[in-house]
Amino acid sequence: MMKIEQKRITAFCDVLRALVPECRLIIGPDVLNVIAVDTANVAMVNINLHKAQFEEFTEEPGEVGMDVVKWKQALDIMKGDAPVTITRQAGKIVFSDGLYTYTHTPLDPTTIRKRPTCPTINLPASVVIEAKEYHDTIKAIGVIGDKVRVSIKGTTLELSVEGDTDLIRKEIESKDGKENAVAVASLFSLDYLKETAKAMRDSGTITIHTGKDHPVRFDFDLDGMEASFMIAPRIEAD
Amino acid sequence: MMKIEQKRITAFCDVLRALVPECRLIIGPDVLNVIAVDTANVAMVNINLHKAQFEEFTEEPGEVGMDVVKWKQALDIMKGDAPVTITRQAGKIVFSDGLYTYTHTPLDPTTIRKRPTCPTINLPASVVIEAKEYHDTIKAIGVIGDKVRVSIKGTTLELSVEGDTDLIRKEIESKDGKENAVAVASLFSLDYLKETAKAMRDSGTITIHTGKDHPVRFDFDLDGMEASFMIAPRIEAD
Amino acid sequence: MMKIEQKRITAFCDVLRALVPECRLIIGPDVLNVIAVDTANVAMVNINLHKAQFEEFTEEPGEVGMDVVKWKQALDIMKGDAPVTITRQAGKIVFSDGLYTYTHTPLDPTTIRKRPTCPTINLPASVVIEAKEYHDTIKAIGVIGDKVRVSIKGTTLELSVEGDTDLIRKEIESKDGKENAVAVASLFSLDYLKETAKAMRDSGTITIHTGKDHPVRFDFDLDGMEASFMIAPRIEAD
Repeated sequence: MMKIEQKRITAFCDVLRALVPECRLIIGPDVLNVIAVDTANVAMVNINLHKAQFEEFTEEPGEVGMDVVKWKQALDIMKGDAPVTITRQAGKIVFSDGLYTYTHTPLDPTTIRKRPTCPTINLPASVVIEAKEYHDTIKAIGVIGDKVRVSIKGTTLELSVEGDTDLIRKEIESKDGKENAVAVASLFSLDYLKETAKAMRDSGTITIHTGKDHPVRFDFDLDGMEASFMIAPRIEAD
Repeated sequence: MMKIEQKRITAFCDVLRALVPECRLIIGPDVLNVIAVDTANVAMVNINLHKAQFEEFTEEPGEVGMDVVKWKQALDIMKGDAPVTITRQAGKIVFSDGLYTYTHTPLDPTTIRKRPTCPTINLPASVVIEAKEYHDTIKAIGVIGDKVRVSIKGTTLELSVEGDTDLIRKEIESKDGKENAVAVASLFSLDYLKETAKAMRDSGTITIHTGKDHPVRFDFDLDGMEASFMIAPRIEAD
Repeated sequence: MMKIEQKRITAFCDVLRALVPECRLIIGPDVLNVIAVDTANVAMVNINLHKAQFEEFTEEPGEVGMDVVKWKQALDIMKGDAPVTITRQAGKIVFSDGLYTYTHTPLDPTTIRKRPTCPTINLPASVVIEAKEYHDTIKAIGVIGDKVRVSIKGTTLELSVEGDTDLIRKEIESKDGKENAVAVASLFSLDYLKETAKAMRDSGTITIHTGKDHPVRFDFDLDGMEASFMIAPRIEAD
């Protein structure tokens, strides 16, 4: 059995939902962990929700075929202040907040894509940025095109979008004051940046790592839940 | 002429609108009454708005072909704090709030379905429930399927919906503490429960009567306006 | 370079957007002016945003092919409290609020419809009305039909819409107390009245001039910005 504040397990599901509708959930002795890649192989999520964030955590370790959409649905129905208990019993998963009881049939994990191995990629430049400002910027500039250039130069992050006739850009200063030795820039699909930005919005600050025509990685912490998104770049010409 | 607070006559129209777009309105010497069945013959409404709820009520008794959608439209345009007057003159109905004047041509009552006779059905079990909690529960559980099981056992109402792989249920304790001798359950279309729940939402408490594979009847009082909905059950197998 | 509060230049664009997606913008020595007719030749706008409304106004006089939709887009992205600077440089127009920089390629003015000459039409009757009340009335009565009759009689404006079976009307007293010698009425397309009413909503009072089956002209002042809309009448029979 696991007992946890609804907003914490909802945030866990929201991070996953930004990239995948289903995944293999690993119940460890003192952590829930997911590593998953989206269908198009463009983006990866790695997330850990630790025992310390739970009110109770006595569930047996194992692997669960997690239907992220249905988990969200169960939590959306409850959406109260009461903590929610999540229990595996007789092949089912039972969610309860003391008022509603939601009995869910999990997916067979062997039908779900395997967990990828996390690649080790050297991303030479990084900045620390307020999550909300990053989110609002991506949302605002996205109206003029569907690709976003993420550039880091010195202590500055620049986000820009080019439309047919127009160009919009915004510079944001890094919070950590670290001077990056090399100037880098890569191009990403707006959709991936938007979905992931939404999931990170309430996480205080995020650390953004990238390189020259390299992936971007966002490291963030949502109230003790550690997570990261990695997104592959678009080729300039496409 | 009838003069009444807008919210009262709007509530009257909202209860009707939950089931029918048009009906035969009976203007009695001291009451407005409608008894009507929906097109599919699944649900019935019976409603009385008494003279005491009006500021003035001097209209001649008679029958009016009530276009519920147009009455709502007239009231939506006004939606202010001023009371509205409703007057029959020269075959028309004139709504006015002192600012807007809405002249409406009523329907010919003979073109509208006749008033049904209210069936007398013995519904052995009942509970008294907060209207808002009932409404919110129907709205929440409806996301996973289109049929709702309404069960009464002892002092408890249970509402449940079964989806393809999942099941959600909620128990609500009756406010009147009455122990029901028999346990009963019937199945209903979500759509009917949702529409009627919305119309009853502000009515404080509602009394729910049902039986085993029998109709459900909701009795409620909206600020002095007495009304009831009756909905036929779905057969288990469909 | 022009520097101005965002809400002022946004209001300027909103007035234009009510009728045209693009127009010829005249930058005068101490004013921005547009006179433009909509594609269907039904309505005309004439607007002046004076130097006094700017924090700085040092832009060279000239003509600009104004893509109203893109100007709005640039301002929507910024929508903050900071003033916005608008600068023509190397054939581009650069909008900036100190955070975002939006570089826009203007239209070629010669591809845009020429500025019309303002007709001189004698409109014998006029009233002064609160812009918000006028807007709310047009919005409310528009639900029952797509043509609005605008009548002036004595000191009273009457707005009315006729539907298939119903008729709605509202009288509004003129603020200036002027008694109009002749009673007049003309019929207009709801869509034009709605779009222009929205653009005028925050302008305090508006002066409405019309005649018998004549155009209607709305004169208004938005925080120092002077503008007018003129709309041609619909023929009664259509």
